[in-house]
Amino acid sequence: MSSGLKKRGVLDLGLIATDGPVKGAAVFTQSHAAAAPVLLCRERMAGGKFRAIVVNSGNANACTGRVGERHAAAMARTVARVLDVADEEVLVASTGVIGAPLPVRKIQAATGPLVAALRPEGAGDFARAILTTDRAEKLVFARGRVGGRSVRVVGVAKGAGMIMPDMATMLAFVCTDAAVPLPQLRRLTRRCVDLTFNAITVDGDTSTNDAVFVLASGLAGNASDPDALARLLLRVMEPLAKAIVGDGEGATHVFEVRVTGARSRRDADRVARRVANSPLVKTAVHGEDPNWGRIVGAIATAQVEVDPDRISVGIGPVMIYRRGRWTGPAAERKARLVMQKPEYPVTIDLGQGRATRTIWGCDLSADYVRINAGYRS
Amino acid sequence: MSSGLKKRGVLDLGLIATDGPVKGAAVFTQSHAAAAPVLLCRERMAGGKFRAIVVNSGNANACTGRVGERHAAAMARTVARVLDVADEEVLVASTGVIGAPLPVRKIQAATGPLVAALRPEGAGDFARAILTTDRAEKLVFARGRVGGRSVRVVGVAKGAGMIMPDMATMLAFVCTDAAVPLPQLRRLTRRCVDLTFNAITVDGDTSTNDAVFVLASGLAGNASDPDALARLLLRVMEPLAKAIVGDGEGATHVFEVRVTGARSRRDADRVARRVANSPLVKTAVHGEDPNWGRIVGAIATAQVEVDPDRISVGIGPVMIYRRGRWTGPAAERKARLVMQKPEYPVTIDLGQGRATRTIWGCDLSADYVRINAGYRS
Repeated sequence: MSSGLKKRGVLDLGLIATDGPVKGAAVFTQSHAAAAPVLLCRERMAGGKFRAIVVNSGNANACTGRVGERHAAAMARTVARVLDVADEEVLVASTGVIGAPLPVRKIQAATGPLVAALRPEGAGDFARAILTTDRAEKLVFARGRVGGRSVRVVGVAKGAGMIMPDMATMLAFVCTDAAVPLPQLRRLTRRCVDLTFNAITVDGDTSTNDAVFVLASGLAGNASDPDALARLLLRVMEPLAKAIVGDGEGATHVFEVRVTGARSRRDADRVARRVANSPLVKTAVHGEDPNWGRIVGAIATAQVEVDPDRISVGIGPVMIYRRGRWTGPAAERKARLVMQKPEYPVTIDLGQGRATRTIWGCDLSADYVRINAGYRS
Repeated sequence: MSSGLKKRGVLDLGLIATDGPVKGAAVFTQSHAAAAPVLLCRERMAGGKFRAIVVNSGNANACTGRVGERHAAAMARTVARVLDVADEEVLVASTGVIGAPLPVRKIQAATGPLVAALRPEGAGDFARAILTTDRAEKLVFARGRVGGRSVRVVGVAKGAGMIMPDMATMLAFVCTDAAVPLPQLRRLTRRCVDLTFNAITVDGDTSTNDAVFVLASGLAGNASDPDALARLLLRVMEPLAKAIVGDGEGATHVFEVRVTGARSRRDADRVARRVANSPLVKTAVHGEDPNWGRIVGAIATAQVEVDPDRISVGIGPVMIYRRGRWTGPAAERKARLVMQKPEYPVTIDLGQGRATRTIWGCDLSADYVRINAGYRS
């Protein structure tokens, strides 16, 4: 639907609704200034049973205080009434400009036509309605065997704005027909988000509205098989997460930072994030420059005890730094070729233990500065 | 001196020498890949008595392993022999390209002429000899009353490269004629560095070679007065630190993030650094855009418990956000004018306690990306 929050005719309101109650789990932003819809949904997740998620773009309903909380509740209530379900069964998400009051009447006025427009093949329009500065819709479908049955998963996401707290937000909505007990669904959601949406970074900034929802209807009638279901969910969530990084503002390269040989997962995570977020590494990635000095510099300041003489660094299949030593100009020339690819791994072995972590990042371009310096002016 | 590490005729070797032994204290990089000269100096600081500091630019002698350590020791030893002082009384610093072996023979060959060229008015040439990508020399002089006598302080620094681990380094050398007991000199050095060189950030990156040295000859013959001496040292160290930020690659604005009302100094420090390092805040500063949404977003993700409804934000004298509320378009227009200045404060009150912290940052420009993406290519 176009409800008028954005320019006339531009889709800005989406609705996911189910025929009966479905199980749901979610992961939300860690920001201490979480937006009103996040506060509302956090409370409602305890129920575990849902009928709908209503999402608007164009306004994040963030930093809007008590009024914002009332608006988020009103937005959900209107949908609940039209669908004739309980208020607590409706979830809400918002993305867009921060600090401005949500024009909730426009959303309420559009709710009737929105429900009338519900259709099984509506995922593409839904994907378009939730975008802000994204360059393209992000929609992924997968099917696989879980517990003796064919199970389907569809996921829709938006990003770009993740890196802009004022145009807040990474949002993802994953729906499956898998049968799964609620506690298991919650565990799987956390685990899969950790490996995907929590493993990407554009500039280290977290929005007020970040949220990932997973709904499971149980209609597939499968037996419980958490590992198979996790694999299937990852087949949707990983490409969605990578699409968000690839669509990062001004991004021209995605690089996967794979840390191995760490003493703990926490150490590995710190090193991977430090490298993926380092402005110097990100500009070197942009310049297609196998600048191991910057990578080692970032590793050495990740607030993890490391021994420089045990560190090895590879770009794609090319080792450019082995146990504290540069491997020479020939390797560097080969690495330079790898870096011309739109996506490649940077492998870092700390030589200390067995823990690993993979984080996806993107380069820092002059376009990023242009987009973000000029955005509101 | 020009020793040939850089292009012919370009100054690349500097020496500070004293007539007799002087007291010395220092603060070094926290990087786990500290460069060879840092490792050597860390050991030598225990002695507390020094005669000289020799510094080269053009090569950082970092990530160079055992060979690098031998080179750093050889560089100091040659100076010690020519000056006829003990090895341990000579300190060493290097800045420049990372990973390449130090051409130590060039430095050794230049040491005789270097010592012959020593002169009281040589600080300007010294300041030039230690530069890498800096746009200008950084030299500050101050004089003040300490313990009943007139005391002098001169400081020289280089930066820019702080933000480039491959062209490493922030270096500062502060010399005073103050009389001060060694333990007090060490405490004052830490305290003053914390308020100045440790309170600046260009892009959150730390180099392998960062070092600040303070030498005190005692020739002023003053009585002990640590607070007066600290104030005098700060009159030199603060402008040097700010000059480094202002000379950050591509920087056009310096902003001072002043956090007040925090529960602890650690909380205040985290919030101030998060805001000063946020790419979104830095691009907004570049775009002269009073984007409080990005500032609040950064505060809320600083891993500090904050209450959004108690946060206030000012740009210069203009409050743009008061206890969780936008103060309106008129304030925003005024703030926009403040942001056209080359330097201004961003004040953040967390409304929780009495702890404070000030950090200086600079904007993120398209030029930063151009300099760092293109540097080695």
